[in-house]
Amino acid sequence: MAIKMSNQFNSEITRADGRATDELRPVRITNSFTDIPEGSVLIECGNTRVMCTATFTQGVPRWRKDSGLGWVTAEYAMLPRATAERTDRESVRGKIGGRTHEISRLIGRCLRGVVDMKALGENQIQIDCDVLQADGGTRTASITGAYVAMVEALRWAEENKFIKSAAKVIKDSVSAVSVGVIDGTPMLDLPYVEDCKAMTDMNVAMTGSGDFIEIQGTAEHRPFSRNELNTLLDLAEKGNRELQAAQADVLEADAEAGR
Amino acid sequence: MAIKMSNQFNSEITRADGRATDELRPVRITNSFTDIPEGSVLIECGNTRVMCTATFTQGVPRWRKDSGLGWVTAEYAMLPRATAERTDRESVRGKIGGRTHEISRLIGRCLRGVVDMKALGENQIQIDCDVLQADGGTRTASITGAYVAMVEALRWAEENKFIKSAAKVIKDSVSAVSVGVIDGTPMLDLPYVEDCKAMTDMNVAMTGSGDFIEIQGTAEHRPFSRNELNTLLDLAEKGNRELQAAQADVLEADAEAGR
Amino acid sequence: MAIKMSNQFNSEITRADGRATDELRPVRITNSFTDIPEGSVLIECGNTRVMCTATFTQGVPRWRKDSGLGWVTAEYAMLPRATAERTDRESVRGKIGGRTHEISRLIGRCLRGVVDMKALGENQIQIDCDVLQADGGTRTASITGAYVAMVEALRWAEENKFIKSAAKVIKDSVSAVSVGVIDGTPMLDLPYVEDCKAMTDMNVAMTGSGDFIEIQGTAEHRPFSRNELNTLLDLAEKGNRELQAAQADVLEADAEAGR
Amino acid sequence: MAIKMSNQFNSEITRADGRATDELRPVRITNSFTDIPEGSVLIECGNTRVMCTATFTQGVPRWRKDSGLGWVTAEYAMLPRATAERTDRESVRGKIGGRTHEISRLIGRCLRGVVDMKALGENQIQIDCDVLQADGGTRTASITGAYVAMVEALRWAEENKFIKSAAKVIKDSVSAVSVGVIDGTPMLDLPYVEDCKAMTDMNVAMTGSGDFIEIQGTAEHRPFSRNELNTLLDLAEKGNRELQAAQADVLEADAEAGR
Amino acid sequence: MAIKMSNQFNSEITRADGRATDELRPVRITNSFTDIPEGSVLIECGNTRVMCTATFTQGVPRWRKDSGLGWVTAEYAMLPRATAERTDRESVRGKIGGRTHEISRLIGRCLRGVVDMKALGENQIQIDCDVLQADGGTRTASITGAYVAMVEALRWAEENKFIKSAAKVIKDSVSAVSVGVIDGTPMLDLPYVEDCKAMTDMNVAMTGSGDFIEIQGTAEHRPFSRNELNTLLDLAEKGNRELQAAQADVLEADAEAGR
Amino acid sequence: MAIKMSNQFNSEITRADGRATDELRPVRITNSFTDIPEGSVLIECGNTRVMCTATFTQGVPRWRKDSGLGWVTAEYAMLPRATAERTDRESVRGKIGGRTHEISRLIGRCLRGVVDMKALGENQIQIDCDVLQADGGTRTASITGAYVAMVEALRWAEENKFIKSAAKVIKDSVSAVSVGVIDGTPMLDLPYVEDCKAMTDMNVAMTGSGDFIEIQGTAEHRPFSRNELNTLLDLAEKGNRELQAAQADVLEADAEAGR
Repeated sequence: MAIKMSNQFNSEITRADGRATDELRPVRITNSFTDIPEGSVLIECGNTRVMCTATFTQGVPRWRKDSGLGWVTAEYAMLPRATAERTDRESVRGKIGGRTHEISRLIGRCLRGVVDMKALGENQIQIDCDVLQADGGTRTASITGAYVAMVEALRWAEENKFIKSAAKVIKDSVSAVSVGVIDGTPMLDLPYVEDCKAMTDMNVAMTGSGDFIEIQGTAEHRPFSRNELNTLLDLAEKGNRELQAAQADVLEADAEAGR
Repeated sequence: MAIKMSNQFNSEITRADGRATDELRPVRITNSFTDIPEGSVLIECGNTRVMCTATFTQGVPRWRKDSGLGWVTAEYAMLPRATAERTDRESVRGKIGGRTHEISRLIGRCLRGVVDMKALGENQIQIDCDVLQADGGTRTASITGAYVAMVEALRWAEENKFIKSAAKVIKDSVSAVSVGVIDGTPMLDLPYVEDCKAMTDMNVAMTGSGDFIEIQGTAEHRPFSRNELNTLLDLAEKGNRELQAAQADVLEADAEAGR
Repeated sequence: MAIKMSNQFNSEITRADGRATDELRPVRITNSFTDIPEGSVLIECGNTRVMCTATFTQGVPRWRKDSGLGWVTAEYAMLPRATAERTDRESVRGKIGGRTHEISRLIGRCLRGVVDMKALGENQIQIDCDVLQADGGTRTASITGAYVAMVEALRWAEENKFIKSAAKVIKDSVSAVSVGVIDGTPMLDLPYVEDCKAMTDMNVAMTGSGDFIEIQGTAEHRPFSRNELNTLLDLAEKGNRELQAAQADVLEADAEAGR
Repeated sequence: MAIKMSNQFNSEITRADGRATDELRPVRITNSFTDIPEGSVLIECGNTRVMCTATFTQGVPRWRKDSGLGWVTAEYAMLPRATAERTDRESVRGKIGGRTHEISRLIGRCLRGVVDMKALGENQIQIDCDVLQADGGTRTASITGAYVAMVEALRWAEENKFIKSAAKVIKDSVSAVSVGVIDGTPMLDLPYVEDCKAMTDMNVAMTGSGDFIEIQGTAEHRPFSRNELNTLLDLAEKGNRELQAAQADVLEADAEAGR
Repeated sequence: MAIKMSNQFNSEITRADGRATDELRPVRITNSFTDIPEGSVLIECGNTRVMCTATFTQGVPRWRKDSGLGWVTAEYAMLPRATAERTDRESVRGKIGGRTHEISRLIGRCLRGVVDMKALGENQIQIDCDVLQADGGTRTASITGAYVAMVEALRWAEENKFIKSAAKVIKDSVSAVSVGVIDGTPMLDLPYVEDCKAMTDMNVAMTGSGDFIEIQGTAEHRPFSRNELNTLLDLAEKGNRELQAAQADVLEADAEAGR
Repeated sequence: MAIKMSNQFNSEITRADGRATDELRPVRITNSFTDIPEGSVLIECGNTRVMCTATFTQGVPRWRKDSGLGWVTAEYAMLPRATAERTDRESVRGKIGGRTHEISRLIGRCLRGVVDMKALGENQIQIDCDVLQADGGTRTASITGAYVAMVEALRWAEENKFIKSAAKVIKDSVSAVSVGVIDGTPMLDLPYVEDCKAMTDMNVAMTGSGDFIEIQGTAEHRPFSRNELNTLLDLAEKGNRELQAAQADVLEADAEAGR
């Protein structure tokens, strides 16, 4: 199941890929991408492609035992040739880099932000996001895709009587998108070429209700003002609403398919 | 570009998946699977799916400098949910396991076996085989797919004038397949369920000319006789010839497409 | 040199430590805390104490060579008994945890955000923030203290003719503070006991000009609305202005002392 | 107890060390080489010397518990100056290389291939093969020596009433030898100088009954034909029969000595 | 609480810092240096400053369980800018160096040497010595400071009823000091500049009763005679008696303060 | 070449192995133990057996370059079954333990203490001490054996014109022995069973001239007095003189053999 966003946005400034400044790249979410995991999704945002799997297991980590609460955790990684120059494997280097750690933790927090741990019970969901191809926005694509994989896994768990109701576990949906200021212009959903030029870069994870779970704005190259922040958040809200529509379409089609 | 093998073989014993004992699983080889690497292939052998990329870079490792010779190396890894139970990432564990090392080395040797290092010149090809889904035969699928990715990368290098002729670098083709003895019957191309029951297990990498590059027979559970060895090698030869036909089809179509 | 902030703020809600909701904890910045480093600062924010050193060295990392630009990097760590329960050393565990990586990277970005790399020339500043005692806000205290240590080191470099002018390298000042929503009330500068109860937690790094370098808002436990975000940013701006006054006092006294 | 093989073979081609092409290097197996382990053997194949110890312990690894079955595992390592150029210790490098992993796993599989795990009961044998001096064929010498050490350890376990009968645990004997094609001539038992020149290299582990446990043929430098394979296997069978005679002599003498 | 040693010693040879050859550097021991640990001490010996904390926990490591005995262990580390040139963190390098291991073990042995493990019961004391500034003698300062921190922690444990009597656990006091031969002259308490020139270097840990717990004499640059050894031990005894007086003063003042 | 010490000592207290309190265990030093290294020695002190190799290489580590001085370094390790219970390999655990580090450093210092680095020139000697069987005193046996291996390597270097004169590089000989107090009685050369019972344990490395290079006395279990120290040093001097006689015999025989 895949969906292509219509290009309905306009703007006077044209970007290298022809998009308007407030326009998302085409997004495709393919669910049940591989057969084995409880949830498996391929998300494509422009040329960025991330495989997100969700593993449902009974039981929780030791520190969480006998709490009656569940747990959700995530790991993010890049395949060596997701990038233009081959990146050495972290397994070969023998340690995980700071960037990987940072993104894994971010994804985990975003998903935990929409899960009712009590309704999940003492079960664990492990999210794995592996970037097959990277063209900017891999962490936000991971969050958006992982949410769909998680719902798939929870529906599987409901069918298999591990939880009572997937719907009760999921308090809200969550998606994420990047925004940034390039040459003074705020823009939505930055591919790699824009990301490199961005003076300010912000990743915004938003719930279906329009509240924020994570705002990570970083402006190493040029601090941003309160006004710019507001414009960026407007863009991010627009982008997230569209991503959530794409998520909903896939999940609805999946539900109808009676999976 | 993908090819489905016709099921033309027969045998009285029927396997769980309905195949004859000397019948390959359906094989699909999709080239140019991702856009960034010089060579990128998805190979599917039954439910086993491996993404193979080939990275062409100028220059060789330090120990090989000023030899006038090129180098080919390979790394193999499994995504966490390629398997029924989630496997911990080797990057998280901080070390690479013995099995991973063993398979990476095997793939590298097989490809080096068909490359003319002098014709390659002081350039390097790095193969990455990442298993998206595992159902037996991941190492042999990796070899078969990696060969196609390597040719793709060498053709790219020829077009970009890094080497004179891809055809001269490639001395021969190479593919690999597993064979084994299950309940006393030699069988070709074992899926996971058969692999577990196999008393004898053999991986055979063969060139297009019909010679062997690697024979790895292991019989921890029941040693095998010289006769059984011969039957297994017959099966492996048959399987490899069919895999090589599939490789050739993809590479021919690709050449015609003028890539 | 140390400064105690006067408690001039008021609010109807009283916090466990008697502060108003918009009131900083007492802050003390002691410069030249140890004798050896080019810059050395002890910053105390309430019971949180962080030792920040700045190391000035000629030359830059390899990837930055011949760029004419300098580099600033940071490492953060906790002593084992900074916390109520002893924390195992990361050197003993053999790897750095995700939280440490994340904070080290954050501190580095904040300082780079106020440094003119061209004016710094091919020199490097390495910041080390070691938490002697932790009571919430260790990452923001690190940023605030590290800025002072960095200025100290740059003044040392100017005196020793490694750079022309410390003032030209420093484009702006930077400080950081945490804000959060506790029991529905937005509050400034959270100690550990409040941090644990916060549903929303945000760290805001601001320049002396009032622009943002980093906004890291995280709301794993309860997403926050655009309105709440605005209130939190107002609090953070107030806190940062006061921290910047404390930084300025120390640096002015230090300059007068003719160091 | 040590045995020197008589040189009874002939061939027209003479090798650097004067041997016929189908002649083993002199082999010496010294049992009870050190006093502490349950089994301890020094095996010398020409200038290759490997110390093999077998540790018998009650109980099995966790994943094997309550199976009623035993376990056999092996580790292989080289002392730094086993080689002409000093090799860095893997403990110092902090990780085990691929070659070490590969050989350790090979040795383990070969020994497990001749052990009746049910007769062993829930006991474990750990083999350690440490190469004191390397001159080619260290992995095959390790297998041949380890078998003797394992029998020694099982006899010790029988005497000490940990198992009922060593003879019942040992289903068959196992030895291993290398063969290869040098300058077009198939040869038996390659020392280092020949190993470097071999275009094809094969290690063959054979049971006392003449069946194969492992065949590892690798021909990175020149693929081999089915005919060559057959000649190499003939040589390997001859070599293994002689090695098994040497093993039997040592074990018989040991049994007579009433140990 | 801090104490400055009066400079009552004389000698004809004057050292760079004006001390007599048998004169300690000024020593300051500040107890309750941080608030969180059960014992926390800052010891300053000249420019060397070490923060020593003692963590008291109920229970002992697994190998010590059900022995009725307690355990004392220690870890030593240097902050990156304790030294003139920044030292890379061992956590970043991913392994602990030999020197760190050696000193950690030394500190642990010295403290265990004065503890009655039976009186301690199944409780554990973990010592952490973190060098804030290094100017020679960091290991001996660590021992001297750690003893005070340990007593502080044991008094805390007595007050909190985890042990019956701190006094019974502590069999004796312990302090340590370095001595060495510089340009042929034996000297007490070497700062870094002397340590570098010392041909012979010795660290001596002595109990309050005047017996030795550790003597580590090392003379890589010029072996020392039995006579020199005796002179060095005389100096070390004098130094240790003075350090023990400083320890006693702090601990007495602390006891009087009714803590 | 091997030498057995005559048992000429007497004492009223008899030890478990029948020795007098001031009597060494039988010592055997076999030189040219393996063929490949420049120096290779097997030393046996009672049941303790250590293989010591010395590797001579031209050039020194980077930090020593252009100093005109040589370098000597050492690494110590135990084979897994040197001990009664199998010890896990440090390569498998992925890190070197504190004890190993400590002993490696000790051996290096002892050997450097008798080498004229200027006469050695910019060459390096790497010592490897691998314990084949451990029965107490492995570190002192390593030092004693390593000295002989080092001389062998230096003689090799002289013959091969890498250095002018081995005799000029070696300023003195060095050996080491353990002493300890067992049940109140000072004893020489402790096997494992005594080592465990020793309240005080001391390792003493002494030059041929009778000066000390290392004294490492440790008395975790019962501090020792100045008097006891003197008795222990007397014993150590006696033991070292005898070990040095054994070293001299081997080296003389070796020189006569014209090697």
